[in-house]
Amino acid sequence: MEGIAVTLPKNSAIEGARAAGRVLAGRSSALIRNEWYVAAFSDEIGRSLLRRTLLDTPLVLFRSLEGRPIALDNRCPHRSYPLSSGLLDGDSLVCGYHGLRFDLNGDCIELPAVPKCPRGVGVRSYPLIETGPVCWIWLGKPDLADPSNIPRLDWMASEDWTGGGGYYLLQGSYVSLHENLLDTSHLSFLHARTIGSPDYVKAPTRIEINGGRFALNRLVCPTRLPSAMGTLTGFHDRGDIARAVRNEFISPGLYEATTRLYDPHADETTRPEYTIRAAHMPSPETQTSTHYFIRVARNFAQSDGQSVAAMVSNLMTAFEEDVVALALQEQMQQQAGGDLFELSFPSDELTVVMRRYLKSRIDAERVDPGVNPAQV
Amino acid sequence: MEGIAVTLPKNSAIEGARAAGRVLAGRSSALIRNEWYVAAFSDEIGRSLLRRTLLDTPLVLFRSLEGRPIALDNRCPHRSYPLSSGLLDGDSLVCGYHGLRFDLNGDCIELPAVPKCPRGVGVRSYPLIETGPVCWIWLGKPDLADPSNIPRLDWMASEDWTGGGGYYLLQGSYVSLHENLLDTSHLSFLHARTIGSPDYVKAPTRIEINGGRFALNRLVCPTRLPSAMGTLTGFHDRGDIARAVRNEFISPGLYEATTRLYDPHADETTRPEYTIRAAHMPSPETQTSTHYFIRVARNFAQSDGQSVAAMVSNLMTAFEEDVVALALQEQMQQQAGGDLFELSFPSDELTVVMRRYLKSRIDAERVDPGVNPAQV
Amino acid sequence: MEGIAVTLPKNSAIEGARAAGRVLAGRSSALIRNEWYVAAFSDEIGRSLLRRTLLDTPLVLFRSLEGRPIALDNRCPHRSYPLSSGLLDGDSLVCGYHGLRFDLNGDCIELPAVPKCPRGVGVRSYPLIETGPVCWIWLGKPDLADPSNIPRLDWMASEDWTGGGGYYLLQGSYVSLHENLLDTSHLSFLHARTIGSPDYVKAPTRIEINGGRFALNRLVCPTRLPSAMGTLTGFHDRGDIARAVRNEFISPGLYEATTRLYDPHADETTRPEYTIRAAHMPSPETQTSTHYFIRVARNFAQSDGQSVAAMVSNLMTAFEEDVVALALQEQMQQQAGGDLFELSFPSDELTVVMRRYLKSRIDAERVDPGVNPAQV
Repeated sequence: MEGIAVTLPKNSAIEGARAAGRVLAGRSSALIRNEWYVAAFSDEIGRSLLRRTLLDTPLVLFRSLEGRPIALDNRCPHRSYPLSSGLLDGDSLVCGYHGLRFDLNGDCIELPAVPKCPRGVGVRSYPLIETGPVCWIWLGKPDLADPSNIPRLDWMASEDWTGGGGYYLLQGSYVSLHENLLDTSHLSFLHARTIGSPDYVKAPTRIEINGGRFALNRLVCPTRLPSAMGTLTGFHDRGDIARAVRNEFISPGLYEATTRLYDPHADETTRPEYTIRAAHMPSPETQTSTHYFIRVARNFAQSDGQSVAAMVSNLMTAFEEDVVALALQEQMQQQAGGDLFELSFPSDELTVVMRRYLKSRIDAERVDPGVNPAQV
Repeated sequence: MEGIAVTLPKNSAIEGARAAGRVLAGRSSALIRNEWYVAAFSDEIGRSLLRRTLLDTPLVLFRSLEGRPIALDNRCPHRSYPLSSGLLDGDSLVCGYHGLRFDLNGDCIELPAVPKCPRGVGVRSYPLIETGPVCWIWLGKPDLADPSNIPRLDWMASEDWTGGGGYYLLQGSYVSLHENLLDTSHLSFLHARTIGSPDYVKAPTRIEINGGRFALNRLVCPTRLPSAMGTLTGFHDRGDIARAVRNEFISPGLYEATTRLYDPHADETTRPEYTIRAAHMPSPETQTSTHYFIRVARNFAQSDGQSVAAMVSNLMTAFEEDVVALALQEQMQQQAGGDLFELSFPSDELTVVMRRYLKSRIDAERVDPGVNPAQV
Repeated sequence: MEGIAVTLPKNSAIEGARAAGRVLAGRSSALIRNEWYVAAFSDEIGRSLLRRTLLDTPLVLFRSLEGRPIALDNRCPHRSYPLSSGLLDGDSLVCGYHGLRFDLNGDCIELPAVPKCPRGVGVRSYPLIETGPVCWIWLGKPDLADPSNIPRLDWMASEDWTGGGGYYLLQGSYVSLHENLLDTSHLSFLHARTIGSPDYVKAPTRIEINGGRFALNRLVCPTRLPSAMGTLTGFHDRGDIARAVRNEFISPGLYEATTRLYDPHADETTRPEYTIRAAHMPSPETQTSTHYFIRVARNFAQSDGQSVAAMVSNLMTAFEEDVVALALQEQMQQQAGGDLFELSFPSDELTVVMRRYLKSRIDAERVDPGVNPAQV
């Protein structure tokens, strides 16, 4: 019948894909609690009360008089009023409804309507550690909170690195964001007009798997840099440049991307190398929405403010393309409902390993909420 | 570890709070049907069709030719078109879809597409009684509807009392509204800028429990009145005034607050007393949304229209603070989901008794939908 | 008790109505898949990608280089990105995320990140047949797709018929739309100001039931035409005109209405007859939302463009009244929830038969997804 060729489902592997999906973290997986996540940029937290939900937990964030960042449960345990709608009075937080007063530890120290405040009333406080431009929070088992495990990136706080950053409330899962960050083959398509080039997807890659860390190394060479990168480096009229990229999943709350741009024909010991770094910090708000914190920086021409701003702007434009795409992906996954399956290919090897790792962390917490991530 | 003091949950009493909560009415309790509720202000009901949902029941409200307020089910039993989108033709209501015609009793008296209207077709009508500025409706067991049980407040219709009123569609439970009205200790906090004063919360109170009525009496004395009340009474430069307040839960659909302002040093028999009254009338739309009708009035300087308007405006501003706060409370309770618990303190004694009473009414109706409230 | 007459439920037949409703298709019935539905107007489909959901199935629609209309699943089977957000490159559709390339059959022919595209990967394609101004799609069992079963209306593509059309995304069930179209007694009420007249509902009707086709014939005579029809025909000052209407349910995706206006006193063989036709094409988006495609045309004064436009405008205004009404109906049905019942009367005989037929189609598909509609 001309014009009505009926195409049968192509994927005899649909059931296989469904089964495979069940061992991968995804949009309907529980959230990992025993982990450090960025709660806010440091300069977001001050003497105004900041309301934010992380891992489904409503929080209020602020600084003590001496400047220490504080995170408390936002729900007053008396009648559920959000403490973030109250006021900060010195080092105590006063509920805006009935005036319950909490100290920096979350202990209730005054209950105005009763003569003597009962003991043992309060809200949870959470470890909140400032490291340079970001504050990290621990929402997991309290006795596992170890600040030495915060996945720091020293360059973020270093004066040798200049840049900027941004924030999106992504309407999608943090898992899809990590997958997006680790599988950069999409640069040739989703980012064709910003940071991608057609040859990017075909360039050779090398995978590293190291416990709960996963890295993809890619060398695109020779290549013609995307326009903005060409301008940045002065390589805009060259088609024989090297672009070496390393993308690393460091933790469920941190991902680092390093791009080195150089002339492969120049002397290796003396040639200039232009290095750009990005820290991507996904912090789940809920299973299907994610606080997406970003810092980008470079270690060259630090004093050229206009060029720094152009670089940040170019990168943020690209990351916004991801935010839009992942929200569309989430919509389609949601619409598919129980019929959802997704096929993975050899090029997905690393992201599949990463998602399987996330799933193992989730499963381990379900069995034992106090499980130590290092033991998974 | 400096700066990361891990605060354990303070509330060993969380489980206790949860258990206690189960015997109190709240946002997820069923609604009480065997009760009179305000359906509308009298002047809202006229010859235009008013669509309103009360106790999850979609209604159409209007007046007969002779001025009687009428309440009928809004859903046409034929094809579910809202009768409120039809038209009023004399004393019959004509469905806007297929023209079914209903009389004031809700009986279908014409079905244009068939020669003879079948008997026994119609919509329910509900008792709707006008008392002064409000109309009361009975949505419970029909044979229990007794207008003599309507909780009237005579001052609302009296010429000795001058004032005004307002309406909010509160995005929260009527239970939380009653609790808000009965536990006025929040005036020192939520209403600090409108009708509260810092000493209000500490003033002595006396509780009255009388069957299904609950009252809190509070004497704030000596006190400095909030600015608007100071202007109203001429006591604005005095710090030694008496503010005597009585808040009474009269029924699930009516709450009355009376405030008396006077100079306690003046002769008790001759001193002027400035009395302000408010009727708060919560009518559940659904479990978590509430029609909130308000009337306020005073029995002094009735002809000073500008001052009356200023008083009404000041009070309505304060009540809007409640509406905003209770919507925030509802959001937080909803977000907490099954993990919700709320702690009660000695200052909550009366509201807890009131909520336990509401719960007993709900439970009694579940066992016997025709239960008489007086027997609960 | 004066003024509070308590009306008991009128409908001892409520339980009967509920039981009767269970054998009728309605807003919560599954959708019929083994059927041809209009997917789009032909001029909506071109070289831009059109995103549309039909029968809960997300689709992308476009035309091949040679102009053939194509319908594919919109969800990329790799990571769920909507293909409609990708780009059309000649006769292939390129996913905007990772660049998977699909041919017109939905077969994946390139997977840029892997050297060799695996076989058997792809998305479903669906038969999409252009017939005049509309394109019909088959989303059912593929081997049952037979274009000769497309319920064509030849006049839609004929030059003898001039008119126009329109589209609504109806927030209601396609069942309620068919019911609306088949039971035109509502013209006297819902369309009183556009295409109805008071006598319409009382005019004699004749029912035809022919397998899965259902028609209502109505002769309104003598009648005074609604204003716009009077102007159209020159019968505006006559009260003795004949309006003969035939409404036919042709399939779950097609409904035809034919209106003949004439002077019944004139010679039957020579009198002019003004015939207006409408094709109503409901295509379920979900159970409770419907793509509503409309074409209207007439076979007289085809060159009088202004008058044609006025006719189309008048009819579209009337159909918009239906769209608003059916959305209100859907809201009321949804609010009634499990308590929903609807009474049917002798005048509903034909729509009840039609809805019972739809239900039998649905039930037959549930038992055997490959059931042939002709055998139901």
